[in-house]
Amino acid sequence: MKTTILINCPDQSGIVCAVTGFIHAKGGNIIYLDQHVDKQADVFFMRLESDFNTDKFSMSVFKNEFETSLVLPYKMKWSLHTDDSTPTMALFVSKYDHCLYDLLSRHNSGELKIKIAFILSNHIDLKHIANQFEIPFHHIPVTKKTKAAAETKQLDLLKKNGVDFIVLARYMQIVSGTIIDNYSDKIINIHHSFLPAFAGAKPYHAAFKRGVKIIGATSHYVTEELDAGPIIEQDVTTVSHSHTIDDFIAKGRDLEKIVLSRAVKLHVLHKTMVYNNKTVIFS
Amino acid sequence: MKTTILINCPDQSGIVCAVTGFIHAKGGNIIYLDQHVDKQADVFFMRLESDFNTDKFSMSVFKNEFETSLVLPYKMKWSLHTDDSTPTMALFVSKYDHCLYDLLSRHNSGELKIKIAFILSNHIDLKHIANQFEIPFHHIPVTKKTKAAAETKQLDLLKKNGVDFIVLARYMQIVSGTIIDNYSDKIINIHHSFLPAFAGAKPYHAAFKRGVKIIGATSHYVTEELDAGPIIEQDVTTVSHSHTIDDFIAKGRDLEKIVLSRAVKLHVLHKTMVYNNKTVIFS
Amino acid sequence: MKTTILINCPDQSGIVCAVTGFIHAKGGNIIYLDQHVDKQADVFFMRLESDFNTDKFSMSVFKNEFETSLVLPYKMKWSLHTDDSTPTMALFVSKYDHCLYDLLSRHNSGELKIKIAFILSNHIDLKHIANQFEIPFHHIPVTKKTKAAAETKQLDLLKKNGVDFIVLARYMQIVSGTIIDNYSDKIINIHHSFLPAFAGAKPYHAAFKRGVKIIGATSHYVTEELDAGPIIEQDVTTVSHSHTIDDFIAKGRDLEKIVLSRAVKLHVLHKTMVYNNKTVIFS
Amino acid sequence: MKTTILINCPDQSGIVCAVTGFIHAKGGNIIYLDQHVDKQADVFFMRLESDFNTDKFSMSVFKNEFETSLVLPYKMKWSLHTDDSTPTMALFVSKYDHCLYDLLSRHNSGELKIKIAFILSNHIDLKHIANQFEIPFHHIPVTKKTKAAAETKQLDLLKKNGVDFIVLARYMQIVSGTIIDNYSDKIINIHHSFLPAFAGAKPYHAAFKRGVKIIGATSHYVTEELDAGPIIEQDVTTVSHSHTIDDFIAKGRDLEKIVLSRAVKLHVLHKTMVYNNKTVIFS
Repeated sequence: MKTTILINCPDQSGIVCAVTGFIHAKGGNIIYLDQHVDKQADVFFMRLESDFNTDKFSMSVFKNEFETSLVLPYKMKWSLHTDDSTPTMALFVSKYDHCLYDLLSRHNSGELKIKIAFILSNHIDLKHIANQFEIPFHHIPVTKKTKAAAETKQLDLLKKNGVDFIVLARYMQIVSGTIIDNYSDKIINIHHSFLPAFAGAKPYHAAFKRGVKIIGATSHYVTEELDAGPIIEQDVTTVSHSHTIDDFIAKGRDLEKIVLSRAVKLHVLHKTMVYNNKTVIFS
Repeated sequence: MKTTILINCPDQSGIVCAVTGFIHAKGGNIIYLDQHVDKQADVFFMRLESDFNTDKFSMSVFKNEFETSLVLPYKMKWSLHTDDSTPTMALFVSKYDHCLYDLLSRHNSGELKIKIAFILSNHIDLKHIANQFEIPFHHIPVTKKTKAAAETKQLDLLKKNGVDFIVLARYMQIVSGTIIDNYSDKIINIHHSFLPAFAGAKPYHAAFKRGVKIIGATSHYVTEELDAGPIIEQDVTTVSHSHTIDDFIAKGRDLEKIVLSRAVKLHVLHKTMVYNNKTVIFS
Repeated sequence: MKTTILINCPDQSGIVCAVTGFIHAKGGNIIYLDQHVDKQADVFFMRLESDFNTDKFSMSVFKNEFETSLVLPYKMKWSLHTDDSTPTMALFVSKYDHCLYDLLSRHNSGELKIKIAFILSNHIDLKHIANQFEIPFHHIPVTKKTKAAAETKQLDLLKKNGVDFIVLARYMQIVSGTIIDNYSDKIINIHHSFLPAFAGAKPYHAAFKRGVKIIGATSHYVTEELDAGPIIEQDVTTVSHSHTIDDFIAKGRDLEKIVLSRAVKLHVLHKTMVYNNKTVIFS
Repeated sequence: MKTTILINCPDQSGIVCAVTGFIHAKGGNIIYLDQHVDKQADVFFMRLESDFNTDKFSMSVFKNEFETSLVLPYKMKWSLHTDDSTPTMALFVSKYDHCLYDLLSRHNSGELKIKIAFILSNHIDLKHIANQFEIPFHHIPVTKKTKAAAETKQLDLLKKNGVDFIVLARYMQIVSGTIIDNYSDKIINIHHSFLPAFAGAKPYHAAFKRGVKIIGATSHYVTEELDAGPIIEQDVTTVSHSHTIDDFIAKGRDLEKIVLSRAVKLHVLHKTMVYNNKTVIFS
């Protein structure tokens, strides 16, 4: 059985030795180890993949002893993930289909080891793609009046389907605080600019007006403040005076797809840790 | 003799034909032609390199006829540059030496066909580099009290030395409005961020705090508004959680050097045109 | 009506003027012009987009006069394309689905203005994707014995369906000389390396063995010599010692998709010209 | 005192714990740890930076116990570096000055913590730069006749000056096997192509002829086989049909400078390990 352990705690001498020694003593074989110390915040981060022979292995015993031997003395926050569980994702979309097509295609190709519970949209424009890929589609329109009711419906769907994380694949609505609270560091958005430049609406128009020579896309965890959450992944491409806003949008589509899918993969593989509104991204 | 002609005017049908026909009729051989139409602003831009046989060629006659046949009817703004003149540059620096070393090395290597009139600084820290490359060095300290006097001295030096354009190679002072007025679209700055993100002071610190995954550098013409002038060139490089602010600064140095030198070359080769606070950059 | 004209001919003085003057005289409005002179080969290349008022416009008259006035005296090769025709593409695939998904998704999104006549494969593995996107699928297995017969079938299908150009979206067979002859500069391949490095089979394995720090993908027109045709588009991504061959393959998939789709778009928009086994790619 | 330890050995369970436990027991504080397992070759690699309180620390005791407790049982190859020693570099050049200017400028800026023993060249063209930066210059011409004698002179100079590693900053001669044997994995070359494409002479000409859309530069350790040693660093830049060979060369200069200086820094910071003609590059 392969396990992935994520740890963060105040930086102290001897942690690496203590953790790797523990794994070793429990019969685990470390196949990947990466660690990071944030010198400014004085915080230690670690990601550890280990192989265990499942014959002799009891998960509950392991967890208990890990808590006693390491979590308590070192004041760790930790999580443990095994490769026998598959996370469940919900996709929120509006009218743009490129990120949706990209994620569904990757899922079908076997690139993304996840279950897709459903596609949710405030419009019906992309229902045919849900049908094409045989994924349930929920149409929940959002108006000022119905916003509260819509959010309740959304949350019900998320809970009922056991959704672990949400991907906003160009969902053109602001997600409610309640949903953000329920899915802290578990809602992944793609913003079509090189944040923090051009946060908010119509970033390609703003980039065109400013005359930049490079445009970008940013995937981040959603927080209450718009487009200000912890950045997971960014990428850029060059533009010039010869490109129109439509060219920016077309070039941006490819960026958005790539950046969002990379962020989703990093999340699914437990390679992201959030602190101080920033991320540690393990390799 | 090689000539480079830059034109912009309201977009109209038949301009390319009229201009190329004129050059052809005057015995010129077009060796490069690039044009751009800004559909939004309805403005036409052109850059044209031609070879003329100097035996039969009179520049004053050419200019007169160009004015009569083309500039007046098409309401052009135009400029003509010949390869027998070398533009004169002044370098403004403070304490960082990487852009200075880079530009001086390129000049010595023959990469930059310019005269360097002098290096001007508000500090004396880089005087030894000026000496090493045998370029005159002027130390003009700037304090709140002496600011006005310093600017007068600067302007005197610029005029006396026939300086055509100014390069701010990490000059840590704001250039006065008088100098900007005298050198409109002729002062090139390097800002150590991917503008418009992180304008102003300490951009690497701000980028670190925001947790971006990519940092950049931007070269632009200086206007009255800080870091808001027409962008000439930008480039970026990836960073991660594992990089400290010092790493950002170190990685940024290479970006700044490359981006500034590219912008200087584009300017010297008359490949930049400014309008609406943006640039057309010819290839 | 929008027309796109592609020209190449021996470089001579006055061509730009002659061509733009002709368009102007025929009532056309030039909306894009790009030209290139290969000084070594002494060849002139031009791409011209013009708008014509269709009321007064006769295509056959235009073509006749273009031939007489320009093609004959300047010894041009030329082609003219109008925006009222849609090119027909055939897709050849084997077992990898990422490029196929990408092109079909772009087609469905309206990004690619083409007809897809059919998907052809030597395997049946991807038939379900053809079904999903409602495109005809032809399974033509290829063995040493059946190779000649298979090629005849392929050619029949291409002709019967009026296919204009072929895209090899990770088709793992060598295309026959007969098909290449019938579709000269009209078969687009994606090779999963940064050509000319690692031509032939298993480029990711070869790249891994050599320990390169960057891998790439190359889209090119197919010629008789394997992986040696005119390059249309290339792109790269960084790798490190920490990546396995499987990581190379996974990272490469995204490159292949992007590079192939860019090449297909350039071809469809008539932005490619081939000469001396190289391409001119207009912007 | 800061120490950097590099280790490689057959992969075994418990190594990380053993090494970090040893450091911990000796009073060291681990400030950086990176490890890599090559699954194919079954080799474990580690880089470890630790801080020791020098009051109580004996280097010879530490080394002895490290050998006994770790090196012998785990069959390690290892090296230990302290920050109180500065490596000595020799620079070999011919006629191109851009890499030389770049490295000397970085050295003067304090970016490279090294001693530069001397600049050696088979030509006298760059002597003035050595003078400008006040570095000893040795002119050793190489002809077929004098090659053996020249190599002896070179080796004498290297030994007499206690040179630790050699940088070939566009040195246009093949380095002799004797020097390679004496400086195994300690001679850093810059090749002006994206290896393995275009190894050997005139790579920009070959790239131009092939019509590639991207050119590159590669820094590698020198081995007996030309341009085939372990790659340390690579980078690329885009080109197009509009670029001449001279444009390739000009664009390539910036690549070469950046790639070579990155490789030199990685080497000086002990971030490179060589095995199977490949490198592990620690972050």
